[in-house]
Order: sequence, then C-alpha cells, then structure tokens
Amino acid sequence: MTTMPGKVTVIGAGDIGCGWAALCASAGWPVTVFDATAQGLERAAAEVPRRTRALVALERATQGIVERGLLEFTQARSLLQAVQDADWVIEAIPEDAIAKQKLFGSIEQVAGPDTLLTSSSSGIPPAEIFARCRRQDRCLVAHPLNPPQLIPLVELVPGARTAVASVTRAQEYLRALGRMPIVLKKPVPGYVVGRIAAAVWRECIDLVLTDVIAVDDLDRAVSLGPALGWAAAGPHLTYHLAAGDGGVNAFLQHLLASFEGWWGQLATWQRLDPEQQRALTHGVERAYKGKVEELREARDRRLSAILRALEQVRTT
Amino acid sequence: MTTMPGKVTVIGAGDIGCGWAALCASAGWPVTVFDATAQGLERAAAEVPRRTRALVALERATQGIVERGLLEFTQARSLLQAVQDADWVIEAIPEDAIAKQKLFGSIEQVAGPDTLLTSSSSGIPPAEIFARCRRQDRCLVAHPLNPPQLIPLVELVPGARTAVASVTRAQEYLRALGRMPIVLKKPVPGYVVGRIAAAVWRECIDLVLTDVIAVDDLDRAVSLGPALGWAAAGPHLTYHLAAGDGGVNAFLQHLLASFEGWWGQLATWQRLDPEQQRALTHGVERAYKGKVEELREARDRRLSAILRALEQVRTT
Repeated sequence: MTTMPGKVTVIGAGDIGCGWAALCASAGWPVTVFDATAQGLERAAAEVPRRTRALVALERATQGIVERGLLEFTQARSLLQAVQDADWVIEAIPEDAIAKQKLFGSIEQVAGPDTLLTSSSSGIPPAEIFARCRRQDRCLVAHPLNPPQLIPLVELVPGARTAVASVTRAQEYLRALGRMPIVLKKPVPGYVVGRIAAAVWRECIDLVLTDVIAVDDLDRAVSLGPALGWAAAGPHLTYHLAAGDGGVNAFLQHLLASFEGWWGQLATWQRLDPEQQRALTHGVERAYKGKVEELREARDRRLSAILRALEQVRTT
Repeated sequence: MTTMPGKVTVIGAGDIGCGWAALCASAGWPVTVFDATAQGLERAAAEVPRRTRALVALERATQGIVERGLLEFTQARSLLQAVQDADWVIEAIPEDAIAKQKLFGSIEQVAGPDTLLTSSSSGIPPAEIFARCRRQDRCLVAHPLNPPQLIPLVELVPGARTAVASVTRAQEYLRALGRMPIVLKKPVPGYVVGRIAAAVWRECIDLVLTDVIAVDDLDRAVSLGPALGWAAAGPHLTYHLAAGDGGVNAFLQHLLASFEGWWGQLATWQRLDPEQQRALTHGVERAYKGKVEELREARDRRLSAILRALEQVRTT
C-alpha cells in the first residue's frame, strides 16, 4: 500500500468539501467532487481551483504541483460515477445523522471493496453515521477544522468495528497531505475539538450577552492571549509550565482554588433562545462590518504565517 | 504626562513579577523589584536579567536597550524604599484576596499621590483587592498572561471608583511596553480570560480523566487545531467566517443544534477531588517527562515565532 490514494472523491461541495478537494489538488492528487445539486457542482468548479491557487499565494503549496493536481480535478454527475473507482471517499455533507447514514448506505453499494470511507462530521458518533454499512471495518470519522486546507489538525474517530488498518491508512493519507491526525481512544458526542469549542463559545457568548466585554474586544483578547499560549503549548502543558519547576502539581496547589471558584460560576445554559440569537448575531455583525470575504482572507494570511513560523521553529 | 513612567516598581518576585520586571527592563525602563522574602529578592536578581536577555535571543527586544534597562534594575529592601518614588506600582504576589487587600492598604500609605497602582490578579474583583484603599481612583487590575514578557494581552479591569484617566494611563504604559490592553466593561470573577481558560481546562481534564484522549494528544489537538484558528480569528469571528457568506446568522442556522447538543453534555463538576488531582498530575507528568525548563524554552521559541509572524502580516 502506498501512502497516496489513486483517486479521492469528496461528496458535498460546501466549505468543508471544497477545502478537502483543494487540499488534495494542492498535493497533486486526482480528486473528484460530487454534490447532489447543480449549484453545488458549479460552486466546486469555481471554488476548488480558487482555494487551491490561494494556497500557492499563501506559500502552503507549490505552483507546479497545484496545476498538475487541478488538471485531474473533476466533478461527477452521479454518486456511482464519483465513487466507483475511488480509493478514498470523503463525506462532507451537512451535519445531519440520518442523511449521513443514508449516504453511506448508498456509497457502500457502489464503492470498491478496498475503498476507505471517512466522514467529516464534527461530532456525531461513528456508530450512528455508519449504522447502515455492513462493512464498517473501513469506515471512520476524519474531522477537519475550517478551513481544512490550512488547519493541520484532523480528529480521527474510529467506531467499535473500525479496523486498525483503516485507522493507519487514514493517518498515512492525512500525513501525506501535511495534516496532523490525532486518534481518539473512544467516541463521544462532539469528539474532542467540538466539546472544547462548545465550552469556549458558550462562555464567550455569555460574556458578550451579559455585557462584560464587546464582541471584538473578546475576540482580540482570546487571539492575543490564551489562543497564542495554547498554540505554543496545549492547555495541560500550559499549566505544567505556569508555576515554576514544580510543574502541574505546584500549579494545582497555587491555583486550583481559583479555578474551582470560576468553575462554579461559568455559564451552564444549554439553549440559545431566539432573542439571544438575535442579540449575538447583531453584536457580531456590528463588530465585523467589513465584507466576510476580506475578513476570511486576512484570517487565512494570519493562519499561514503562523503555520510557517511554527514549521521554521520545528526545523531549527 | 508622558507614556513612559519615571520608575516602575514590581511587588512579588514570582513568575509573573519577574516577567513584568523583564518586560520593563527590555524597554529600557527603570524597574525595582520588592519581595518580602530574601529568596524572592535573590530569585529576581538572577531571573529578571536572564529573562530580559532571553528576549534579545528571541528577537523580542534589542541588546542596547536591554542592557540600558538592566543598569537601572534594582531590588528594594523595604516596601517604603520600593514604592516611595514609583510612578507605577505593579502588585504580583500570590492569588490571595486578603493579602492583596493588606498590601494595597500599606502601599497607599507610602506611595506618592499620583502613583498608578495595578494588581496582576487573575480573577479577584477590584472592589475586593482595593477594599482598604481610600483613593481607588488610581487603582485597577492589569492582568497579564504567563509569560508576561511574551504574551501581548493584558486585561484591564477597572473598579466602580477607578478614574477614566487611570485606565487611559495604564493603556498608554502598556502600549509603550508593546502590550495589547483590553478593557472589561464590568468586573466578574475570573474576568474574561480566566473564565474562558477555566471552561477549556475543565473540559480538557474531563476528556483525559474519562480516557477519551491522552494528555499529549489533547494538547497537540488544541495547539494544531482550535488554538491556531482562534489565534488567527477570535471565537466569534471564527464562526462568522465558518458558514459561507451568510456570516454568524447562517452558522447558527446550520450548527447551533450541534452546539446545543454538546452544551448539554459538557463537564459541569466544580471540584477536582484528591484522586482526580493525582490522576491528572500523573498523566501530565508522564506525558511531559522532559525537564520543565526545556519545555518552557521550546514554548517561548514557538510563542516568539508566532508573534513575529503576526507582526509581519500586520505590516504587509
């Protein structure tokens, strides 16, 4: 087995699907996108080359390989055509357990026996997603972050019936694409990233809705504060390094009481009612009046610059 | 009023105090450290020059200015000597509300009438910290992150009696030190950063203690995933950019249901019992067997590289 699939098929031409396809094309891999709608196919035809070429401008890919990859980028008109000769099928349709179940049931009927099947779900347990598949040994979740062509992390979430060889194969494919796969030991709703993101976002929403801080000040505070810290050292390592040479043990002695005080006070609501949704939407839209596309490009420039910087530190 | 204080005094020679002093010295500012213990003073005498010079190696400060600053770095033997001619007094003693109250009561008796007084507390409301001060107009919290000489964010938390001019003055001092002050609209326990960090850490501890993921895999997942994203665009902006051109409104339509599902399942415990503390400590120590000092240096190299990269993006 090589670490490069003969052909990758991405199903669903939204942000995540186009990101996966751009990532594959930027590595020179043949990639086919299928979407159930004509608009989806049109979107992919424009968006995948745009994102792939943007990776060259961002110094995340090289011109020659990108153009070779784009020569082999196609859109399929049917699921059968998309999947029948694929070595790796990436599902990237909207987050709906029933729709994903049905889709994987259909994919199984037309995919070859050795095709790797992964779902981009951001939190649905694999037992649900692959419930209609008879052969779940080659099925697992490979959850990328947005935008998939830039953020290195991919969460791999095997189900109870996933074969170890399929996890290894997904890891090899992902590493060949420059991704950093992390394997969960067991599936939980939201996986790891979704749960942490949910904990962060609930508290961020609460701090804005209770008028402690403005939307853009909060975003700046996280970007220039804890996010920088966590990008340089994950949460556990951060506290292991935060109390002198005594490590996490000393940290707990000095600051566990503070954390316990805060844990008792954090937001615990589980629903965002329509009025709160309106207030949040209004606050975010007022803070970021600029065009979404420009804000997104600025984010991608910052992301690429950070990635380059971290790669340079790693090699020195 | 200039944006540079004539003299800064830091009270407390722990990690945060030495970080503040190194930051001031790296800007060429005269800085005095006072600590109630002889060991604290000895520690500062070694640690402040070490950290200040490390900033040169990390390309965060220039040799000439650093050496000029270190010529004017002193240790005081008494609170009176430390505070009497200071323009800005930075408290950085351990996180204990009563101790901070008492200290500020004493500082007020020896500080000049125009001295700015800030506390480095990471979450105690200013009304408590400054409860024994008669003149609270020049008192506020200026909470840095660890390490203060590298992470740009400083949370400014004014109390009800803090004068606007004092907030402005703290902002000017901090900006002159290359920091990014963010002002909270009202004080809440844990401020903004502590609450978000507490939300993250509780979920991270829970994911490790329930054996969903290993300590180092979790840290890597956060570092290479959401932390990168949040460093490039804060949490609210992240979701504003994550659902095509519809912004946060479209995001809520597509993914609020997922978040609501996760919000109902996140960890809610408020205490870490001794057995859990042992399990966490054991897990973190096993994951990071290397010397704490080496891990800290690696973190600082990554942090400086990221900061440099972001500054370059900002100027292009």
